[in-house]
Amino acid sequence: MTDWIAHRAAVLPVQPAVIESSGATTYGQLDTLVAQACVTLAHLGVERGTRVGVLTSNSLSFVVLVHALVRTGAILVPLNTRLTDPEVRYQIENAAVSVLLVDDASVGRAIGRDASPAARVLRLEDLRLDDLVSTRVDAPVRAPGALPTINLDDWQGILHTSGTTGRPRGAVITNSNHWWSACASAFNLGLHADDRWLLTLPAYHIGGLSILFRAAIYGIGVVLHRRFGPEEVWASLVRDGVTIVSLVPTMLERLLEEAAPARHALRCVLLGGAAASPALLARAAARGVPVVQTYGLTECCSQVATLAPADAITRPGSSGKPLLGIELRIEREGEDGAGQILVRGPTISPGYCDRHTIRPIVDAGGWFHTGDYGQIDPHGYLYVLDRRSDLIVSGGENVYPAEVEAILRGHDGVVDACVVARGDSTWGQVPVCALTTHGAPRADLVEDLAAYCGERLAPFKIPREFRVVEELPRTSTGKLRRGEVRRWFGGAP
Amino acid sequence: MTDWIAHRAAVLPVQPAVIESSGATTYGQLDTLVAQACVTLAHLGVERGTRVGVLTSNSLSFVVLVHALVRTGAILVPLNTRLTDPEVRYQIENAAVSVLLVDDASVGRAIGRDASPAARVLRLEDLRLDDLVSTRVDAPVRAPGALPTINLDDWQGILHTSGTTGRPRGAVITNSNHWWSACASAFNLGLHADDRWLLTLPAYHIGGLSILFRAAIYGIGVVLHRRFGPEEVWASLVRDGVTIVSLVPTMLERLLEEAAPARHALRCVLLGGAAASPALLARAAARGVPVVQTYGLTECCSQVATLAPADAITRPGSSGKPLLGIELRIEREGEDGAGQILVRGPTISPGYCDRHTIRPIVDAGGWFHTGDYGQIDPHGYLYVLDRRSDLIVSGGENVYPAEVEAILRGHDGVVDACVVARGDSTWGQVPVCALTTHGAPRADLVEDLAAYCGERLAPFKIPREFRVVEELPRTSTGKLRRGEVRRWFGGAP
Repeated sequence: MTDWIAHRAAVLPVQPAVIESSGATTYGQLDTLVAQACVTLAHLGVERGTRVGVLTSNSLSFVVLVHALVRTGAILVPLNTRLTDPEVRYQIENAAVSVLLVDDASVGRAIGRDASPAARVLRLEDLRLDDLVSTRVDAPVRAPGALPTINLDDWQGILHTSGTTGRPRGAVITNSNHWWSACASAFNLGLHADDRWLLTLPAYHIGGLSILFRAAIYGIGVVLHRRFGPEEVWASLVRDGVTIVSLVPTMLERLLEEAAPARHALRCVLLGGAAASPALLARAAARGVPVVQTYGLTECCSQVATLAPADAITRPGSSGKPLLGIELRIEREGEDGAGQILVRGPTISPGYCDRHTIRPIVDAGGWFHTGDYGQIDPHGYLYVLDRRSDLIVSGGENVYPAEVEAILRGHDGVVDACVVARGDSTWGQVPVCALTTHGAPRADLVEDLAAYCGERLAPFKIPREFRVVEELPRTSTGKLRRGEVRRWFGGAP
Repeated sequence: MTDWIAHRAAVLPVQPAVIESSGATTYGQLDTLVAQACVTLAHLGVERGTRVGVLTSNSLSFVVLVHALVRTGAILVPLNTRLTDPEVRYQIENAAVSVLLVDDASVGRAIGRDASPAARVLRLEDLRLDDLVSTRVDAPVRAPGALPTINLDDWQGILHTSGTTGRPRGAVITNSNHWWSACASAFNLGLHADDRWLLTLPAYHIGGLSILFRAAIYGIGVVLHRRFGPEEVWASLVRDGVTIVSLVPTMLERLLEEAAPARHALRCVLLGGAAASPALLARAAARGVPVVQTYGLTECCSQVATLAPADAITRPGSSGKPLLGIELRIEREGEDGAGQILVRGPTISPGYCDRHTIRPIVDAGGWFHTGDYGQIDPHGYLYVLDRRSDLIVSGGENVYPAEVEAILRGHDGVVDACVVARGDSTWGQVPVCALTTHGAPRADLVEDLAAYCGERLAPFKIPREFRVVEELPRTSTGKLRRGEVRRWFGGAP
């Protein structure tokens, strides 16, 4: 189909596409930037199918790059800037990245050629996107009938999401996944001519990245923040005319701690990433902040189900109903109707990338088994009871216990480890760890473990507390009884 | 994908789906009616692939039937109630209709078994849809995960559109055509939670039928009028909260002759079917009526390009820019850049139906040659110069000169005929005819011709004036010089 950016440049060239505090870039300008970036990428040897790792935080250059890779037919492998070098290296290898673009903040990291010979490392600055961006030349008017096209079946990206196996998995996301997701979201949230979507989530996660695609397909503006700050968000709502913002609960908590401006055009806070507490939702409602809870996954290209604001009071804790085209089913396990959540539809990733092969993620019936547990009430409302059964969500970032445990078991002094969530007023949850040792633990073990994890794990994944125990509780079949360990740390089982 | 009506019934069962002066039918109720109609249709032998002719005017029963045929996988052949018996019979045969449903107003017409043995004729009333509709039972809540699905590649309908060959052609429209058209339209006009689309165009044409599909996909309400009346439209805008209405220029003319209510929620008049005069657009603007001009065709599942209200003043006469996913190109013929309009995209019909075969309508490059002439200015705005070169649009109905001429040439007293448009204050255009005869014409020829046409052509197709001439003007290659004939009747060449 027609390239989304080129279409908007042809139809509404002066419409703002990206709004930053420093000024706005129109769709005409963005289209020109994307076209120029495509030429530069071609010079660098990036072509159709090339897998391009990108390690940078939110910026206009990143937006240009995302759309230039789509137009080129190359595959974006966005890398979380908070990961450690070994974590980044693993993802680069797993996605078979051949070109790695890093911003100046990361250029000195041990993730490049020496550390991972397969990938050629380039400085993002070498693309000179910032120079292009700073000039923001007015685009020549697009000649009609000569617009670039994109292939909906092309892979847009490989996005890593850790699983219970302890190793991150690279979910392939296609242009088609983004298209269907954007349509389904619009037919749920509506679409106003003056809509502007605030992107303050990191764009290397699906929750942020998908905003760039929705905006391009709808032809609306993205208000771009480099990082989250509650005061900046409130100021931006007023200054930039933001109508929709995607947040995780921790962000909403912090936002509600600040004084709100008297007037703003906000019509929807799309709240995802983790379960929101009823208290938080009540506080938002009291402040007149219209919250739409959503349940989404990387493998489903973001939103799967959402709860309308009108239902927020009567269905506290629900994630609502599936979007158009998406089907939900519970694989029942107990008497209470709860069980694993299954999802089916055109937004589902074609599979996990394993270097040069792809492993489908749906069963023979087309259902994706999310690993999350939930139930659906008689009125069709979804309640997510447990995300990935043991997933820890800390400040909007996912922490997979199995991944942390695998690292800890690699330490000389550790026999076995169990990582669980502990409630935290700032981050929602933080990881904590119970572990067993060979004989009596060394005096400096905890200190040593913190340093050991610091070299191998992003800061948000490092357990805040290590507790040495005689034995970890297990079921008769040998599975960790995580509920018991959560109780040790003062939580509910 | 998920059946659109069932999805909305599951997600928003109490949302109004069809609003009539007698009351509203919710999506939950509509879903139940559709399910019941599917059972009835199955009893009548209608199954996947069955071609079902339907001859009726706008009604809730027709809406139910349209969606029930989609869910069944059967193919709707909507028939224009204004056509003569021979015209209807031709379409029934051309589309290989095997079941014909007619309303009580048409049940006595000579279009059924005797006249056209292939089709089994049933009274629409036998489906007892009206009984079902009148009860409007509250639907049981849809069990999640068990929604019916529809196949996007299925043929939704066969819609006849006359061509220059003088015989109507049956354009096949798929569910996918409707889906892409609805998405493209939403990403152009936007989508508000309280949108309601007024259907006063006949639903047997694509301009009306496509409203039913957009509404179902968006989950908004259709305000249903059985026929067009300017006073009823204004009243409905106030009473029913209409935000969007699709009209042809003749209807807009008549609407603007009436006094408008002080307050209404109308945000868009989608104006198509024929070129609107600058005077009409100026009058609408002066009255604060927000007009979006559109260029659409049956073969493209309605809208191809639209002109935003903001551009209506600066680009008078333009049909605007293509919708997302649709490409436009001019096949240049002259120095002025004008030529035939070509269209490409996922909304284009897979082909014309010729009984049990289908003839693709796009060339090797995927382009549909519309037969309309136009040009695209340097800013990308489309100007349609001549619809189907010689098409006459009378009160929103297409009159194809070639079709009328072929009928006239079949009359004993006529040698040759040329039918052209004459401007008309009520109907926009009406057909008029110049003709040659064998020797001197009989005294009663004109009277006889009117009666002859009345038996074979819908009233709006019958020439309002017959003028006998010595010779019809032709080019050196033998083509009728229609411009010259138009001048005879006082028009521009």
